Amino acid sequence: MIKVAVLGVGTVGSSVVKILEKNADIIQARCGKRIVPVIGVVRDMSKKRDIGIPLTDDIKSVINRDDIDIYIELMGGIEQAYSVVKEILSKGKSVVTANKALLAYHRYDLQKAAQKAKIGFEASVAGGIPVIKALREGLSANHITAIKGILNGTCNYILTKMMNEKASFKDVLKEAQELGYAEADPTFDIGGFDAAHKLLILASIAYGIEAKPEEILIEGIENIGNEDIYFAKEFEYVIKLIGIAKKKGDKVELRVHPSLIPQDEMIAKVNGVMNGVSLIGDFVGETMYYGAGAGGDATASAVVADLIDIAREGQSPMLGFKSPLEKAKLVIMPKDEVETKYYFRVKVKDEIGVLAKIAAVLELSQISIESFLQKTEAKKSDTTTLFFATHHCKEANVQKALKEIEKLPFVIDKTNMLRIEANT
Amino acid sequence: MIKVAVLGVGTVGSSVVKILEKNADIIQARCGKRIVPVIGVVRDMSKKRDIGIPLTDDIKSVINRDDIDIYIELMGGIEQAYSVVKEILSKGKSVVTANKALLAYHRYDLQKAAQKAKIGFEASVAGGIPVIKALREGLSANHITAIKGILNGTCNYILTKMMNEKASFKDVLKEAQELGYAEADPTFDIGGFDAAHKLLILASIAYGIEAKPEEILIEGIENIGNEDIYFAKEFEYVIKLIGIAKKKGDKVELRVHPSLIPQDEMIAKVNGVMNGVSLIGDFVGETMYYGAGAGGDATASAVVADLIDIAREGQSPMLGFKSPLEKAKLVIMPKDEVETKYYFRVKVKDEIGVLAKIAAVLELSQISIESFLQKTEAKKSDTTTLFFATHHCKEANVQKALKEIEKLPFVIDKTNMLRIEANT
Repeated sequence: MIKVAVLGVGTVGSSVVKILEKNADIIQARCGKRIVPVIGVVRDMSKKRDIGIPLTDDIKSVINRDDIDIYIELMGGIEQAYSVVKEILSKGKSVVTANKALLAYHRYDLQKAAQKAKIGFEASVAGGIPVIKALREGLSANHITAIKGILNGTCNYILTKMMNEKASFKDVLKEAQELGYAEADPTFDIGGFDAAHKLLILASIAYGIEAKPEEILIEGIENIGNEDIYFAKEFEYVIKLIGIAKKKGDKVELRVHPSLIPQDEMIAKVNGVMNGVSLIGDFVGETMYYGAGAGGDATASAVVADLIDIAREGQSPMLGFKSPLEKAKLVIMPKDEVETKYYFRVKVKDEIGVLAKIAAVLELSQISIESFLQKTEAKKSDTTTLFFATHHCKEANVQKALKEIEKLPFVIDKTNMLRIEANT
Repeated sequence: MIKVAVLGVGTVGSSVVKILEKNADIIQARCGKRIVPVIGVVRDMSKKRDIGIPLTDDIKSVINRDDIDIYIELMGGIEQAYSVVKEILSKGKSVVTANKALLAYHRYDLQKAAQKAKIGFEASVAGGIPVIKALREGLSANHITAIKGILNGTCNYILTKMMNEKASFKDVLKEAQELGYAEADPTFDIGGFDAAHKLLILASIAYGIEAKPEEILIEGIENIGNEDIYFAKEFEYVIKLIGIAKKKGDKVELRVHPSLIPQDEMIAKVNGVMNGVSLIGDFVGETMYYGAGAGGDATASAVVADLIDIAREGQSPMLGFKSPLEKAKLVIMPKDEVETKYYFRVKVKDEIGVLAKIAAVLELSQISIESFLQKTEAKKSDTTTLFFATHHCKEANVQKALKEIEKLPFVIDKTNMLRIEANT
């Protein structure tokens, strides 16, 4: 068993506790140990919280407990967090943090302090996307040619809305604030400072460079106007706030600013509150990582992954599980039971009653039509093609219907069936 | 020093040797050890190869060498590779492999055989994209709701071409063969079997399921016609060969087939020979990983990353480097030296000679114009807006030009400058 203390029980802290409870079995199968949150530290004990662990406002007593194995630092701020984390590391206890500001200023100090213990910080950049791991381990064979990151969901939400809806910066910012995507004082996000913190963390891993936020070029999105959007569209660009790191000789470019990006690049397609990071290596070429860059659950996913990494003690099991997944072993679903949406293309003689007969076959197989299109080529008016897209239905029923359709006398050629896969 | 043997010196093997030579210093900084390829094993000694290591066709002698620390299995095939890898593992030596067929059939046998040693196989799925690491470690806190992967570059190239150019399957296949994107006998790729091997590897890590290729639904792209493309476009879909794994209760859906995907989903935007894998977790939501899924250099990038992981002995350094990066320490590039393309929006009184005067300022600052647009609003014909996009130039020159433009008497409002960032 690994006992964990959560320092700071806000949105992310609560999600961490929730994941450790809800996914306890699979987490144990993956790391071979039970990871249990045993105490939370909060500033304000009077605030009501719906959380299944004891809480205290006495951080000193928690840091001094001998039975805690890993501390999760979610307090925010820089200097207090730094002294707390340093103290924990000095006791040989490991820390997982989501605190990008702490790392933007003290990552090299923390690396020195973490000689006897581990420090996990995957959650500090791009929330749930494991981009630190990708850069530090996945692309470790490469010299990194460039990093380009959409690292701030607030800015990306605002710019996406401005691109799509011709809305003004002011109006979209107000809307983002109402939706909770932007803070009451949005300077830290829209000014590019949050993205800069994250960029510096990535740049250290790529280049070993010890830059601080004050030393790099940072511009925000406040001055983007609808005329800029107009130009961008006209010349097939999108406008994104991008954090850029590039090595040129013995110098590293580090800058955060709104940029015009060709609209067919992968990173240009990252919209709304989502984050995306393009990492370009001298051998691997361009790779891109996409996902939720903020939010309690996504950020907590990265925090708990770091806990699991520490619990695995650097020995990640080959196929991901140290022990079988569940008491009931998983089996392959028989093909017939698969349920999805389907598409049929049926070529038929153009006769009266054709559609009615095919529709009847589909009805008999309990297949409900979502979209339908019929197309007759001008030059071949004796044949016509029917296209159906269905609602969700069972593979077995689809296979049955396909056989029935094949028997119909007016059907020419084999009917083509494809499956439709949508995230929702 | 870590000595490595390369079993199979084809495209990937040659790239591995090349990376270990060219990036030797940064690799050593990242893992604390020199990784040196000392011997290559080939089938045909008479074939000419431009490679800087000794070669032999006597695999037994190489397997029996005591001084080799890690073996890289790039022989291909299933049963011979299996017995070779098992023998190496039984000696307590680690193996890195890119052999997806081997893993599709023997991954659980290999996991058992790898008790005393490591087996790395990041290169077996999606080439250079570190998707195995993302799934096994990055998303380990999650139950995986679904995996959707574009796992075969040949199919994706063909389908992308068919979507974009209304070309027939046959013609595009022929072109792909001429370009080296498809084999002379393309069945393994276009029939979906290659993608199925990769899907099974991912499904094991997500669900611990021991399926074999024969047990799952596999359909290829041979029957996709231009009429299907027509329907897809009409209803805002793209057609992709997708490997799907989904858990429903105690059953796991495993299937590979062409699918209609809504065109606004991230995975729908993965085009050409590129691969993309969407991993959806119960807490993290959707994450997507994009990059080159094949090719010597990209695949070798993943092979070498596995070597580095093994050399790090599970202790990945916090910021990625065990020792300083290079003799010459990297420094931050001064802002003024940054070179990129730029965009200006200048609002001016609509007078004679305005454009000439601004163009002259740009020329004086050695800024060359790539695109230009002038727009006058119908209702405000006394003012006009000039938009410039430049070729590459220096930030210092741009800042100088901005100051000069500001001084011009006919300029209204502050000129807005944005940087243009393109991969090429």
